[in-house]
Amino acid sequence: MTNSRCRAAKTFSAVPLVGVPLVGVPLAGVLLALFLAAGAAAQDDPLPSWNNGQTKQALLDFVQTTTAAGSQHFVPEAERIAVFDQDGTLWVEQPLYTQVVFAIDRVKQLAPQHPQWKTQEPFRSLLTQGEDALADFSIQDFEKVIAETHSGATVEEFHQVVKDWLATARHPRYHRPYTELVYQPMLEVMQLLRKHGFKTYIVTGGGQEFVRVYAEAVYGVPPEQVIGSAAATRFELRADGQPALIKLPKTLLVDDGPGKPEGINLVIGRRPVAAFGNSTGDREMLQWTQAGRPAHRPGRLMMLVHHDDAQREYDYGPDSKVGPFPDSLLELARRSGWNVISVKRDWRRVFSWQTP
Amino acid sequence: MTNSRCRAAKTFSAVPLVGVPLVGVPLAGVLLALFLAAGAAAQDDPLPSWNNGQTKQALLDFVQTTTAAGSQHFVPEAERIAVFDQDGTLWVEQPLYTQVVFAIDRVKQLAPQHPQWKTQEPFRSLLTQGEDALADFSIQDFEKVIAETHSGATVEEFHQVVKDWLATARHPRYHRPYTELVYQPMLEVMQLLRKHGFKTYIVTGGGQEFVRVYAEAVYGVPPEQVIGSAAATRFELRADGQPALIKLPKTLLVDDGPGKPEGINLVIGRRPVAAFGNSTGDREMLQWTQAGRPAHRPGRLMMLVHHDDAQREYDYGPDSKVGPFPDSLLELARRSGWNVISVKRDWRRVFSWQTP
Repeated sequence: MTNSRCRAAKTFSAVPLVGVPLVGVPLAGVLLALFLAAGAAAQDDPLPSWNNGQTKQALLDFVQTTTAAGSQHFVPEAERIAVFDQDGTLWVEQPLYTQVVFAIDRVKQLAPQHPQWKTQEPFRSLLTQGEDALADFSIQDFEKVIAETHSGATVEEFHQVVKDWLATARHPRYHRPYTELVYQPMLEVMQLLRKHGFKTYIVTGGGQEFVRVYAEAVYGVPPEQVIGSAAATRFELRADGQPALIKLPKTLLVDDGPGKPEGINLVIGRRPVAAFGNSTGDREMLQWTQAGRPAHRPGRLMMLVHHDDAQREYDYGPDSKVGPFPDSLLELARRSGWNVISVKRDWRRVFSWQTP
Repeated sequence: MTNSRCRAAKTFSAVPLVGVPLVGVPLAGVLLALFLAAGAAAQDDPLPSWNNGQTKQALLDFVQTTTAAGSQHFVPEAERIAVFDQDGTLWVEQPLYTQVVFAIDRVKQLAPQHPQWKTQEPFRSLLTQGEDALADFSIQDFEKVIAETHSGATVEEFHQVVKDWLATARHPRYHRPYTELVYQPMLEVMQLLRKHGFKTYIVTGGGQEFVRVYAEAVYGVPPEQVIGSAAATRFELRADGQPALIKLPKTLLVDDGPGKPEGINLVIGRRPVAAFGNSTGDREMLQWTQAGRPAHRPGRLMMLVHHDDAQREYDYGPDSKVGPFPDSLLELARRSGWNVISVKRDWRRVFSWQTP
């Protein structure tokens, strides 16, 4: 059965039969008519990968209430800004952030040009133990690895390195390119919002230049709508007279936690009306979104993805090193009226290639 | 005579009469028809405040060549990015940058709360000598004044201070609000580009939050398309539980000279196809714009405003402390094929309220 036929079958029971005269019509014709009607209904659903329920309804209500002419909470099109965390909100972040896997691979790839890494920590551990070394890594160790693997090249050269890596790297569990591990339900949310005049921004703790490489193709988000942790660059005229922007081993913006509203203000200069995240690093972004002008508050939407589906994806939360979702965040969400998305309950399918 | 009638009269001679049967038609009717036709022609001119000539033609050719379907140098709409310096390119920067005038006024306004300024440099000099003190200012002096007058408040509070100041401040020569001292010809260029799918960005050495206050109303440029020198901010939860972004006395981005392409990459992540400036601080932005992919080069536009009209505006260049345009820049422009806009020759009027 194809996905679209599955969808049609599932929404079948929701098709209203009121007013359809059935007497005297051949059975095959009735079935065909019902099937077509069900198909049409499924096509009209802007969120087909979501199960019906409170969360899906909250999404639909938000779009209606902020965009319908004459609505009390109408938001002018220019102010329709929606922000999305990436890791754990738009794509899989387990068992390791994708960009960390990239950095480890990059250390291995660059090792022949850096013989000193054989004895220099944290590179020595990474080269001998691989991912296992990460358990003992300090923030400073991470910074060293990012500095060495993400700087020195021009911005364009760095883009090409990331592009080449994405073409061959595969996720250890799903054995697919990382760019196929995006959450289909969230893509549908982005599309629904854009269809209603929203600008969708990615606001990620990950590297801005890393995410820009695939954000347009994968999420439909152009480079100017990707806000991420950013390194400083240096403009220079090269020997051939051509200018270049060199990535420096110097952090300009840590776009995580409080850095998210700071980055949003720097790049957008407007307060979002919708914000989506999945962990403590997104807390301040949701608080900032919610605390807009009082008159607008009912027209704001704050959502957190809760990963509770070990079968189709991962089940993690309070104790995870990657994308922690502690009870205090759950409690804050409850107190603040934020919506918590349950992967298990709310998503009919997680990935586009999964049968619902 | 109103401006629009002036325009009609000027373009009158350009109206083709071929095919219009004049015999037997009453003279008044002919004149009326000609007048209406002339009016229509003027309305069709997207750059009515520009004199016909090479520069205007270069603007029109650029738009045609980058946006006409099938053109060899066609630029997809998503990549149509045009960047504009502000001071001296979009509005008057003489005799002092507007934001410097604001900072001086702000020092005077805040002085009662800072009694120590009476003896502390550079504030003492500013308070006793006003603008005259600037002649002896070092970069560090400026930084101190900006740090004290542009930080401490929330972003919204700072916006309000700027708004209040703009409402009452007047330019010493024109006796008008600074926001009325924008160059009408450049507004027409921005409008023409936007009409053809370009996104117009301001890329200014001035303060990003300062310019955002009026950019939308004055230039039609929304806050997310204003890139400027930026201070770091700090997110904090206030006593009432409301989050706030506090402006810090710490520079994040100096958006001038090489900082312009760096800022463009940070915020846009695409290379512009058109760049407008007027001084050495814009050189790298124009170089960066020009050095895009070789195949695109003929579809790039680089322009520098040259202030050579003391009568209607100002005549300054090599020796100006504000917005210098040295001979070396003129030479670079010539060598690189950049267009130099002569205020005197190219602009029919400088301001919207001037009769051409």
